[in-house]
Amino acid sequence: MASSSKPTPLLKDELDIVIPTIRNLDFLEMWRPFFEQYHLIIVQDGDPSKVIKVPEGFDYELYNRNDINRILGPKASCISFKDSACRCFGYMVSKKKYIYTIDDDCFVAKDPTGHEINALEQHIKNLLSPSTPFFFNTLYDPYREGTDFVRGYPFSLREGVPTAVSHGLWLNIPDYDAPTQLVKPHERNTRFVDAVMTIPKGTLFPMCGMNLAFNRELIGPAMYFGLMGDGQPIGRYDDMWAGWCIKVICDHLGYGVKTGLPYIWHSKASNPFVNLKKEYKGIFWQEEIIPFFQAATLSKDCTSVQKCYIELSKQVKEKLGTIDPYFVKLADAMVTWVEAWDEINNTVSEEITSTKASEVAATK
Amino acid sequence: MASSSKPTPLLKDELDIVIPTIRNLDFLEMWRPFFEQYHLIIVQDGDPSKVIKVPEGFDYELYNRNDINRILGPKASCISFKDSACRCFGYMVSKKKYIYTIDDDCFVAKDPTGHEINALEQHIKNLLSPSTPFFFNTLYDPYREGTDFVRGYPFSLREGVPTAVSHGLWLNIPDYDAPTQLVKPHERNTRFVDAVMTIPKGTLFPMCGMNLAFNRELIGPAMYFGLMGDGQPIGRYDDMWAGWCIKVICDHLGYGVKTGLPYIWHSKASNPFVNLKKEYKGIFWQEEIIPFFQAATLSKDCTSVQKCYIELSKQVKEKLGTIDPYFVKLADAMVTWVEAWDEINNTVSEEITSTKASEVAATK
Repeated sequence: MASSSKPTPLLKDELDIVIPTIRNLDFLEMWRPFFEQYHLIIVQDGDPSKVIKVPEGFDYELYNRNDINRILGPKASCISFKDSACRCFGYMVSKKKYIYTIDDDCFVAKDPTGHEINALEQHIKNLLSPSTPFFFNTLYDPYREGTDFVRGYPFSLREGVPTAVSHGLWLNIPDYDAPTQLVKPHERNTRFVDAVMTIPKGTLFPMCGMNLAFNRELIGPAMYFGLMGDGQPIGRYDDMWAGWCIKVICDHLGYGVKTGLPYIWHSKASNPFVNLKKEYKGIFWQEEIIPFFQAATLSKDCTSVQKCYIELSKQVKEKLGTIDPYFVKLADAMVTWVEAWDEINNTVSEEITSTKASEVAATK
Repeated sequence: MASSSKPTPLLKDELDIVIPTIRNLDFLEMWRPFFEQYHLIIVQDGDPSKVIKVPEGFDYELYNRNDINRILGPKASCISFKDSACRCFGYMVSKKKYIYTIDDDCFVAKDPTGHEINALEQHIKNLLSPSTPFFFNTLYDPYREGTDFVRGYPFSLREGVPTAVSHGLWLNIPDYDAPTQLVKPHERNTRFVDAVMTIPKGTLFPMCGMNLAFNRELIGPAMYFGLMGDGQPIGRYDDMWAGWCIKVICDHLGYGVKTGLPYIWHSKASNPFVNLKKEYKGIFWQEEIIPFFQAATLSKDCTSVQKCYIELSKQVKEKLGTIDPYFVKLADAMVTWVEAWDEINNTVSEEITSTKASEVAATK
């Protein structure tokens, strides 16, 4: 095989690339030099009878809606349909420690010197080096070659904390909401900002799922993209929802979230009129949701991601359920998601274990 | 005059440039195109009998130690001697709304295209556009041309808040502490990061005084550089001290602090052995000082910078006084500084007004 003579890329056997799609994956041709040695998990959205063509030479598994329903049974209700939120099914069935997820309208970007950017390699560097959420370093990532912690940075904080999430950015089409798309239809992001930084503890950010990597072991069970699309009152808030949840939980558990490099080339703006229809309730609701997440605290008992997520789901039901019944349904789906995660991954949480133990005792 | 035919730069009559120095100001030659139409306030440190030469054509006032003692009388004790902390005297005597302060070993930097950077103009842009401390924008400064708020950024927060401080960076010699200087004597900052960002609410940062601008009306009375140098157990923490204080107060009052562009070219690393001697207590103490500032909260009564600063001084005395008697002295100096500020600026605080009113009543 041609690839056997190539150098082994970083984390080759420890990372899956998750791609949600409704079309043939021609975009992978451009990514071939960077992705071909990794395993892909393709989550096919929409009509399951449609055949998705994957360019030759890629190692992949593909799941359509029928597969999701078969594998999860009734719990498949927590996986969105007709929305890229379905991608989180791929996170769940992965057997790897790391995930990189990318949209199929994202291409390889070039840095200012004209070199093609290996986005995945940069994400891996971000994930494998620590984060610094407790104090801001004015020269950005202190672990990067050629830089360090500046004067006045506490020495006790220089070891940093494990990095759970690496959020990459986009050249060309910026990730704008429908109103901004409508107002600035021709705005393109041409600015290459050569920085990676940790988002400070206590600060929320709008996490975009277009170009995102994370450590499944650290944060996977919270990387749920919610209920969006078909049958739901909202779309295009899947990654936002996950971003609010993971940030609160990372802050609680002491993990880092980075943003900045790498850039991908986002090729095509989605239709702003369609987007507006999907988004408008979210635009309204986020004015209450964000203060909720900014104020959210988790109890000391929440020592695992699963426990954090279940606790958060209760708070969602209690405090956001008053906005719209949708949030009650979403809170239930959060629980279903974690239960499904634990089943698929055999990571039975303590609560379930103890329940089962008592059931066993009761049947004796 | 040659300058009369030149275009008027931004805020020409509303900004003073404050320069602390012990030597002839030849470095101004390089800054002539950018500074010559502004007014300079030069604070001469060290031997007052030494004559500091200022290149011809600059409009300036110069204060040496004798001037400071004469103007402030006994309150001159709050102004440091033999340390660049003395620069804050310039902030106090300025009559302008904005201050830019720069060290005399800082030269004009070039951007990646080779153009000389007008650092002052960038600072002014930073100060005149709002800040966004409550939520992180992943494309950095949303007010910059060619960019905006990204999807998921709450619309209610898009007006931003007034910007109080603009913290600029340094190419060539990075602002490292003595231990890092010793370990990495040859490290140079060559990375031009083309971004300005707001430091989120609740996050502290190491503020460097080398290349710094601020709005005197919003935050001036808190921009005190502490007791450093001659007769004090510590040096090189003047700007750090100010940075911790102003950030807590800006967070309380709802003002923004930005960092990033502009870069200056920092020409000469200071002696790391001398620096170590000045810094070592600070390196030790900052491990307790920073958690103190991270936890500091101000009461609702603190509706002005002066009130905030007096309240902070009380907390410093109470909570940091146990580390070393130095902090008791520093807390007293903070009060003296605010009193001197109010005297010089005729901004008599409410407490003083009411005291005087009662004195007047008593003498009737």
